[in-house]
Amino acid sequence: MTSTPQPLDFRSDTVTRPDETMRRAMAAAEVGDNVLDADPTIAELERRAARVLGMPAALWTPTGTMANLIALTAHLRRGDRFLAMRGAHVLHNELGSAAWLAGGMPEPLEHDAGPGRPTAEALERAIGTVGPYFTLRTSLLCLENTHNSAGGAVTPPDEHARLLAVARQAGLKVHLDGARIWHAAVALGVPPAALTVGVDTVSACFSKGLGAPVGSVVAGTPEFVELARRTRQMLGGGVRQGGVLAAAGLVALDRVDELAESHENARRLAAGLAEHGWSVPAPETNIVLAEVPDVPAATKSLASLGILAYPLPERVRFVLHRDLSAADVEETLYRIKTSRAKPGS
Amino acid sequence: MTSTPQPLDFRSDTVTRPDETMRRAMAAAEVGDNVLDADPTIAELERRAARVLGMPAALWTPTGTMANLIALTAHLRRGDRFLAMRGAHVLHNELGSAAWLAGGMPEPLEHDAGPGRPTAEALERAIGTVGPYFTLRTSLLCLENTHNSAGGAVTPPDEHARLLAVARQAGLKVHLDGARIWHAAVALGVPPAALTVGVDTVSACFSKGLGAPVGSVVAGTPEFVELARRTRQMLGGGVRQGGVLAAAGLVALDRVDELAESHENARRLAAGLAEHGWSVPAPETNIVLAEVPDVPAATKSLASLGILAYPLPERVRFVLHRDLSAADVEETLYRIKTSRAKPGS
Amino acid sequence: MTSTPQPLDFRSDTVTRPDETMRRAMAAAEVGDNVLDADPTIAELERRAARVLGMPAALWTPTGTMANLIALTAHLRRGDRFLAMRGAHVLHNELGSAAWLAGGMPEPLEHDAGPGRPTAEALERAIGTVGPYFTLRTSLLCLENTHNSAGGAVTPPDEHARLLAVARQAGLKVHLDGARIWHAAVALGVPPAALTVGVDTVSACFSKGLGAPVGSVVAGTPEFVELARRTRQMLGGGVRQGGVLAAAGLVALDRVDELAESHENARRLAAGLAEHGWSVPAPETNIVLAEVPDVPAATKSLASLGILAYPLPERVRFVLHRDLSAADVEETLYRIKTSRAKPGS
Amino acid sequence: MTSTPQPLDFRSDTVTRPDETMRRAMAAAEVGDNVLDADPTIAELERRAARVLGMPAALWTPTGTMANLIALTAHLRRGDRFLAMRGAHVLHNELGSAAWLAGGMPEPLEHDAGPGRPTAEALERAIGTVGPYFTLRTSLLCLENTHNSAGGAVTPPDEHARLLAVARQAGLKVHLDGARIWHAAVALGVPPAALTVGVDTVSACFSKGLGAPVGSVVAGTPEFVELARRTRQMLGGGVRQGGVLAAAGLVALDRVDELAESHENARRLAAGLAEHGWSVPAPETNIVLAEVPDVPAATKSLASLGILAYPLPERVRFVLHRDLSAADVEETLYRIKTSRAKPGS
Repeated sequence: MTSTPQPLDFRSDTVTRPDETMRRAMAAAEVGDNVLDADPTIAELERRAARVLGMPAALWTPTGTMANLIALTAHLRRGDRFLAMRGAHVLHNELGSAAWLAGGMPEPLEHDAGPGRPTAEALERAIGTVGPYFTLRTSLLCLENTHNSAGGAVTPPDEHARLLAVARQAGLKVHLDGARIWHAAVALGVPPAALTVGVDTVSACFSKGLGAPVGSVVAGTPEFVELARRTRQMLGGGVRQGGVLAAAGLVALDRVDELAESHENARRLAAGLAEHGWSVPAPETNIVLAEVPDVPAATKSLASLGILAYPLPERVRFVLHRDLSAADVEETLYRIKTSRAKPGS
Repeated sequence: MTSTPQPLDFRSDTVTRPDETMRRAMAAAEVGDNVLDADPTIAELERRAARVLGMPAALWTPTGTMANLIALTAHLRRGDRFLAMRGAHVLHNELGSAAWLAGGMPEPLEHDAGPGRPTAEALERAIGTVGPYFTLRTSLLCLENTHNSAGGAVTPPDEHARLLAVARQAGLKVHLDGARIWHAAVALGVPPAALTVGVDTVSACFSKGLGAPVGSVVAGTPEFVELARRTRQMLGGGVRQGGVLAAAGLVALDRVDELAESHENARRLAAGLAEHGWSVPAPETNIVLAEVPDVPAATKSLASLGILAYPLPERVRFVLHRDLSAADVEETLYRIKTSRAKPGS
Repeated sequence: MTSTPQPLDFRSDTVTRPDETMRRAMAAAEVGDNVLDADPTIAELERRAARVLGMPAALWTPTGTMANLIALTAHLRRGDRFLAMRGAHVLHNELGSAAWLAGGMPEPLEHDAGPGRPTAEALERAIGTVGPYFTLRTSLLCLENTHNSAGGAVTPPDEHARLLAVARQAGLKVHLDGARIWHAAVALGVPPAALTVGVDTVSACFSKGLGAPVGSVVAGTPEFVELARRTRQMLGGGVRQGGVLAAAGLVALDRVDELAESHENARRLAAGLAEHGWSVPAPETNIVLAEVPDVPAATKSLASLGILAYPLPERVRFVLHRDLSAADVEETLYRIKTSRAKPGS
Repeated sequence: MTSTPQPLDFRSDTVTRPDETMRRAMAAAEVGDNVLDADPTIAELERRAARVLGMPAALWTPTGTMANLIALTAHLRRGDRFLAMRGAHVLHNELGSAAWLAGGMPEPLEHDAGPGRPTAEALERAIGTVGPYFTLRTSLLCLENTHNSAGGAVTPPDEHARLLAVARQAGLKVHLDGARIWHAAVALGVPPAALTVGVDTVSACFSKGLGAPVGSVVAGTPEFVELARRTRQMLGGGVRQGGVLAAAGLVALDRVDELAESHENARRLAAGLAEHGWSVPAPETNIVLAEVPDVPAATKSLASLGILAYPLPERVRFVLHRDLSAADVEETLYRIKTSRAKPGS
């Protein structure tokens, strides 16, 4: 009987654990009651995140889902239609809270300009014309950069600008789900603020790729943040001494540049998998999508090798992150090669 | 200065006015307080509609929108995903109430089996597999027969059966938006009940094509109707002496067979428009869709001839109904011919 | 075996049936599609109701519940607290739609200034002071005149003015549930518009006391009505040829003065019941509340005499209306007297 | 110029900061991705909390507000009426989320059996009888033990049992807001599980009095917890490596007995304030309510002495907690005495 090898966890970049530096920062964090007063460390993280994201103000939230939800409830009136890329996190990974809680009627956009983004023309067509009172009203465009289910795909600033132009001319609000905006910035070699130009609100996560255990922000105008603070309290996200978590967020922000290593590892993994005969597009950031004929079989077969990957429709997802090194990628490829595992077999 | 010719109103089959027979029936209706007791004429219409639709029980509602909304609130838990054809009335013509009020997360299906219906394979793919707790849950398939925005397209019983099989095996509830189910039945030469096989709930309207001024039903099990009665009251649809309207519904039900005339008129109009060089698919029931390069221009040009049509994206819609005769269709074609109006010019 | 005597229905003034005049008006009504265009008879009723109510504009709705609900959704942001009299229709008779659909957090006010109204001081206390962001926000006062569950109680203009002053100074919106505002106006000898001074919105019903089978209005600014039209459509209240119902509303409006007869009959009934030893306060309008020790027993005992009354907590309600004459009241008192029925026995 | 004395913060027991022991435990916590897998420390806290609370299962949440909200959404159908004590946290301190998110229609109960609790008779009266379909439906009783706004008032097991008997016989679900259930248990000398007998769900906080920076639980059946996990994710409470917070919760649970010290300090403070002429009922646990004629003036005057207290309607609230010692209470009384501050002056 053979022992299972030490598992290498590629399922998501949310699986990272705080390292010693981060844990020490958390343990030493100055804290306060963030409902009655302001927790000083949360306040510092909010100020710093707002600056990095190029927004006037920001609000800490426990999760990216809550950050997005707060933005959607702010932008949508009851029943308003909003546009988001097919496969967007707000459409597929937030359990319908956009409909239940924000009352929004989603409409998926196709990825016809490339992974994670529509052409300006398709966006214009989807917005359509304003109809009489008894017709659906479109009020929000929701972007996602990088786009998770499109394989960590990056929207560059010029395409972003074209989409923003269409949306603003049609009077739409724009929210950017920037859970992994850090990855887009690193991949493009631009500051994150270059990717939020013209948006009304943006969310960003410290727990995806940057290694913090818990915590996100949603940023916008001071008026938006005032409303968002109230919504956060209503949803049950108004924590007290959250500075212990925000301290991890501050450490995470110092590490944005290190994401380049995950991107390099993603390219290595994709190249290696392709050598073994897998069908794998070159990754733009830290997410590798492998097309396989039988996803459950492939996922199971990988798991038997101690390689944890995430099953998607028709594809297996490998996400690179801080806790997976170049050596781990080599080990992964070695295990696959020696097991003679075929994709999906 | 020329006078505007008498307008011929093709915008919708909702524009019909009650005739003398119907008005007399309304004036003579036996009525009661339908909240405290049961209005006898409403009760009769509910019984008869349930029988015609092949369902155990039915509930009167003021509109088809409320009928659909009541069904959706019954079938959807907070945030549940539901599937409906792209362009479905519940997606595009009910102002997002499916999201706001029922908390449902819609997903549009493509019309790949023909106008108004998906293939069973595409449906199966859209349903996908049941994921872990943190993934979206699909719980409802919403059909529409005939399908309005697909040009009054009919789903025949065998295709209906294939879709139902997929939905039921996946544990989905099925609601049929049958606002114009009468048209489908007449076009197919089957009773309406042949088109509701296996569904959990069905809505149907007396004010679309059948000529009643106000009124719809939603049908299902007695338990559903009990819940629906409560929801109707909450939404503000619990009218008192509604028998004055139900009486019109009873007259309307006697006239289902007469819809064949509207279908014949639709074919005449489509053929005539095609002769004038318009691009017009042959209509399946009472709705004619003409593809035109410039919809606003075409609609305006028609209006100047006293021909009222409804603008859709890239198409102009002509709906035939009781108040438009074969002679009106000839007159319409004559006006277009003599004006030398080109589609969209 | 004795036959049950012809029932005299005092349960509500919603039980009235349209008479011949009203039925003829309905049968002759000019109608149109009130979604695509404007139904001319609905438009006339809306104009006339707005004028009578002293408001800039009005919108027809199928029920008073929908009229109130539309107003509440317009005035309340998610989670906003609103104040209404204990026992108010919006609190107790609309199945919680104020919470579910409008997201409002109700707070009942005590009737300490008299039936159906609070003192200005109690209102001020209930509003309280504006707290920090993490405290409940009060944004609406909901009045009801006459107040149904307080026995058709009237709020006179001077008390109305005092309450309005407090509410407006605190920045609250004010909605008046005027389902029976006609009764208040007749009882006070003032025009209905004298009772809406300063309110943002008011609802009124044609089916309670005035005898129309179906129909209400909600009135406010043109901007409110524009929003209300959209909400009505979402809720499923956007009927087509509703002119057949609005015609009854127009007849009803001609009959406001006749309500004095129901008030006179209410006084007669109350006096007669008191003579038989029942505990009955003098009615202010058309509603008589009799305190009885055992409500179910009293209701049942009355029913056995062919007298239908409505059970409330600790009281039996008799509502006078167009379809109950002075002779019916005499007959009612005679049946009670000769049966030697004791209240609650 | 005098320096402001070091502030003594009595505003709430939420202001406590984690001490070194707790911070060390947090820094050393074993963690995992609590969405994809189970975080081992969260799992341990959930197991232990369930056992202590006498419930089959429990789920960690970021706040008590989210814990209550999850329970309410589970128990309430759209528009359902629920009963809670006047001044309850779910009514007054959760920004109307009970209405907006759970769709519940609240009804306040009076404290007629003593602070924080109704008599069984009043509860029975408030539940009333089940009416026809068009009447409000009552489905939940929400208790709070200790009751915050009633001054940390305790409901003893026998009264709890009497209320539960009434609720269960009427078919109501029962949720216990046990944010400070630890205080009730310590004050009564019973285990917390003695105070949850018969309830369907209970929430409890580690951040109120017990000193943890962030974290609560909601407990019930395994089926409830499964649903709750989904709702938590929808609301944005599905954090990843939450074990860093749960570790603080585990330390907190070890400290329940130490709450007795806060109760003793509360009694000292109340006695001292009474000696100075304040009107202060004897506290039952850790909350002291002082009636003052002018709350804003009293709060401000105290603040100028470096004593932070929380303003309530007509009362100033002092909350004792881990970070306020007996010496701090003496210092507080000394400052008040030497300043010759009169309550509210």
